[in-house]
Amino acid sequence: MDLVIGIDGGGTNCRAAVATADGTILGRGKSGPANIRTDFPRARASIIEAVEKAFAEAALDAGHIASTPAVLGLAGSNVGTYREQLNAALPFSEFQVESDALIALEGALGEGNGAIAILGTGTAFMARREGAVRSVGGWGFLVGDQGSGARIGRDLVEQALLAYDGIRTATDLSRSLMGAFRDDPGDVVEFTTTARPGDFAAYAPMVFEYAARGDALGQEIVSRAVADIDASLDALRLVDDEPVCLLGGLAALLSPKLSSRHQVRLRPPLQDAVGGAVSLAARRFRSGRVAVA
Amino acid sequence: MDLVIGIDGGGTNCRAAVATADGTILGRGKSGPANIRTDFPRARASIIEAVEKAFAEAALDAGHIASTPAVLGLAGSNVGTYREQLNAALPFSEFQVESDALIALEGALGEGNGAIAILGTGTAFMARREGAVRSVGGWGFLVGDQGSGARIGRDLVEQALLAYDGIRTATDLSRSLMGAFRDDPGDVVEFTTTARPGDFAAYAPMVFEYAARGDALGQEIVSRAVADIDASLDALRLVDDEPVCLLGGLAALLSPKLSSRHQVRLRPPLQDAVGGAVSLAARRFRSGRVAVA
Repeated sequence: MDLVIGIDGGGTNCRAAVATADGTILGRGKSGPANIRTDFPRARASIIEAVEKAFAEAALDAGHIASTPAVLGLAGSNVGTYREQLNAALPFSEFQVESDALIALEGALGEGNGAIAILGTGTAFMARREGAVRSVGGWGFLVGDQGSGARIGRDLVEQALLAYDGIRTATDLSRSLMGAFRDDPGDVVEFTTTARPGDFAAYAPMVFEYAARGDALGQEIVSRAVADIDASLDALRLVDDEPVCLLGGLAALLSPKLSSRHQVRLRPPLQDAVGGAVSLAARRFRSGRVAVA
Repeated sequence: MDLVIGIDGGGTNCRAAVATADGTILGRGKSGPANIRTDFPRARASIIEAVEKAFAEAALDAGHIASTPAVLGLAGSNVGTYREQLNAALPFSEFQVESDALIALEGALGEGNGAIAILGTGTAFMARREGAVRSVGGWGFLVGDQGSGARIGRDLVEQALLAYDGIRTATDLSRSLMGAFRDDPGDVVEFTTTARPGDFAAYAPMVFEYAARGDALGQEIVSRAVADIDASLDALRLVDDEPVCLLGGLAALLSPKLSSRHQVRLRPPLQDAVGGAVSLAARRFRSGRVAVA
């Protein structure tokens, strides 16, 4: 039986699916963190666990894993340096590693032209035209990821401190943020010394909530994020009817606020990133048996 | 012999001076880092070494240290939690710990009213009126320190990456920054994952240099920094002829660019922060023997 495996390995969890040679998913599995840069042994264990669960759900013998090819989408830009370790550690007949953005794009758009914007704790933008992929952003929260939850939350903290100091006008939103730290800027500073991007992103929903109620600071921060996302989409230079899919936890909140020039391109994703990894695996490893566009 | 000690302990080095009861400095000493939060034993050793060197320069017996009072200006906002450790560790007859900003203010202005702006890797603003002190900013580079070298350098890195992605227009300055990282944004991201504020601040002089030559990005970043500093000075709400002293490594570069409403208040500092610590020590511990304003 000709099978393929698709894997989406991220810092929070790992998802896998096993599918037929034409990409029809038979079973799915989910496990723990799979960040190969921070904990390689654990990532390897998570990958294998998710795949075994997918085989179990499909009522397939796990013994077939060793004869099945896989596409892995893994977060992190320098996965390349882990190639040898992965070769020795993974049980598949053969495999290809792609960025998490590429499997998300394949899942959202299928094989066609178009773009995705990943709008979550971070941001990343990727377009594909006739197979050629172009990326923008994704450089991390300290000097990039404009429009992300982490930047929106960090903007809130920065502006609330400026309001505390009387450098800008306080609003309900800035007072609410300071209230979360007992109105003590020392407590805010303490938070920032250990906060991860996700800790800042936790304040993003509050910014949207106050913005919707008319809070001037909330509206200012959201407007800046939207303008940054619009500018990143512009930089992808989409043409004709190339579609855009918004992905990630903030997609629903940001989607109605984008410029009309991007609104007209929006469409819902076809499937998730695991589905994208499966499609890529079917096309690459079983293309003799599948119709390829 | 009635003496006083003044100490300026920072993350890079520690400076001390011994003075007569009226604040006339007899000898100075300098030693290594004195950050009590990150390395208490080393900070203690640096403080004692700097004081012993000051006594040696003054040809005074180090045996007098135990009978001499001191004022220490120490960087870090929560020095208070180290009070007991310091009590057990320091050899002075008595001592007071102040913020690094307060001894800098005392050194710059003497006992009078006025304000200081510390413009270096970070920024901090402090005003004093009839003995009452008011601070603005100094919340750290991630969500504060607007107008600082670290923020100027970080702005450059962020804008250069946007230019690399085609989201904004590239300039000679953005190309020069990317060139320092072999035009590889991955190298830039690698730098940012470990960079300390001082590493970002190292790019600040380059921003001023290109701005002076007319580079649009350089001028934009400098203008933002100047506007942020003007706004922080406004928040101090100075009145009448209260003077402002600019301190720190970027003071000379920023001084001519400030708004005219602040320019008219500028004057050079009277003495350095160690001198300020000595003055405070003379006033607090020997005031029976000194004329106090």
